[in-house]
Amino acid sequence: MKNKLQVVKIGGNIINDDPLLDAFLSDFAHLKGSKILVHGGGKLATELSKQLGVVTQMVNGRRITSDKDIDIVTMVYAGLINKKITAKLQGYHCNAIGLSGADANSILATKRPAIPTDYGWVGDIESVNNETIALFLENNITPIFCAISHDNKGQLLNTNADTIASEIAIAMSKTYLVDLIYCFEKQGVLQDVNDENSVISSINTEGYSALKKNKIIHEGMLPKMENCFHALANNVSKVKIGNINMINDTNSLHTTLTL
Amino acid sequence: MKNKLQVVKIGGNIINDDPLLDAFLSDFAHLKGSKILVHGGGKLATELSKQLGVVTQMVNGRRITSDKDIDIVTMVYAGLINKKITAKLQGYHCNAIGLSGADANSILATKRPAIPTDYGWVGDIESVNNETIALFLENNITPIFCAISHDNKGQLLNTNADTIASEIAIAMSKTYLVDLIYCFEKQGVLQDVNDENSVISSINTEGYSALKKNKIIHEGMLPKMENCFHALANNVSKVKIGNINMINDTNSLHTTLTL
Repeated sequence: MKNKLQVVKIGGNIINDDPLLDAFLSDFAHLKGSKILVHGGGKLATELSKQLGVVTQMVNGRRITSDKDIDIVTMVYAGLINKKITAKLQGYHCNAIGLSGADANSILATKRPAIPTDYGWVGDIESVNNETIALFLENNITPIFCAISHDNKGQLLNTNADTIASEIAIAMSKTYLVDLIYCFEKQGVLQDVNDENSVISSINTEGYSALKKNKIIHEGMLPKMENCFHALANNVSKVKIGNINMINDTNSLHTTLTL
Repeated sequence: MKNKLQVVKIGGNIINDDPLLDAFLSDFAHLKGSKILVHGGGKLATELSKQLGVVTQMVNGRRITSDKDIDIVTMVYAGLINKKITAKLQGYHCNAIGLSGADANSILATKRPAIPTDYGWVGDIESVNNETIALFLENNITPIFCAISHDNKGQLLNTNADTIASEIAIAMSKTYLVDLIYCFEKQGVLQDVNDENSVISSINTEGYSALKKNKIIHEGMLPKMENCFHALANNVSKVKIGNINMINDTNSLHTTLTL
């Protein structure tokens, strides 16, 4: 029987809020069994860019990662946020190791093709090194991943954190029974965006199609949902979306996704 | 018989010079056997501080690490420099893993006492986790350490890179035959500071005392020399000082230290 593994992804709303982050990390540290944390970047990279006078270029509403931008996100994601989280988890007696995709060749990516749009140093994931990640887990070391990968030719690449979480979950499913948990600011996917309690408890692919058609699931949620169903279609055992209370309170509201 | 391990420390002069860093990393990647790299910070942290308008406080000619400073060095040392080196080594087919002392609890330190001088978030090393570092080495993973430790209570601490290198070398000597190699801008310890070729090929503790007395060894070199002799006195097999040519050319000039 496969051992259980929880892959938890946290976003900017938690990272930007010190007391909330501390509370979450304490809960995460106390989660039993094997676990992996994936974190986004929050507002800190944008703030640092502003302070350094680096203007963010956008194409079709999406950010371009320039030479200066990749340095900034490497400083903020792999440096400041990743190491603060790692040190705090050590303080909570969780033997964390902070990683980018370059570290131990854990996440290999290729630069997104420059045609039709050149997004700069943005990487699409090729493979996740499940054997090395398993080596850490077997030795009670908890990997903490930031949203940076590498191309194995010396270049770091900016990569979406939701996608990193789902690709790690998929790769680890070869040898583990994996639960993928997306923590964000809401309690789950909402039927009515103005009603925080209108959490849809379960969504399958059919229901998802209907929710998309009726525009109940919003633009920003679509890539996250696509990551969820992609994970389920590739042997991830369970996928849940909710807020951080999900981590230690199984009765808290959340959305479970099924095929 | 113990396996051989090389612990190599590089300083700011190499880190600040991209072509020099590339040449060094290519050589380091091709070093045979187990190896560990420790890197300093270079001028990048000072430059970032200036750009962000953070004024460096000095006491008795030594830098104080404030709240803002520890964030900056974490971004620059553990983020930008450490991950760039790691990605470049991966490009040279060396399976590097970039680490701060918080990662996998590898370097535990305590904040330096605030009396008589409060240096802020500066850590003195308590212990190096030789078992976890050996786990990496046994799995052909090459640790790349930046000059940051942690206190196991959630706080990152700024720690001298030369000292990190010597303490790692000492801790690893429990199970490895360790060579400690300090690479800096000179070819070795110079008899005449104005003559680059006046390298002293070998210095023992007695010779060191004489060189100190005659003020041939300068102020800035004293802590480095102390780290060298401390390592030799604590089971490190060999300690060498020189420039990066030492790494792949055994005939290049350098200084060997002995007890």
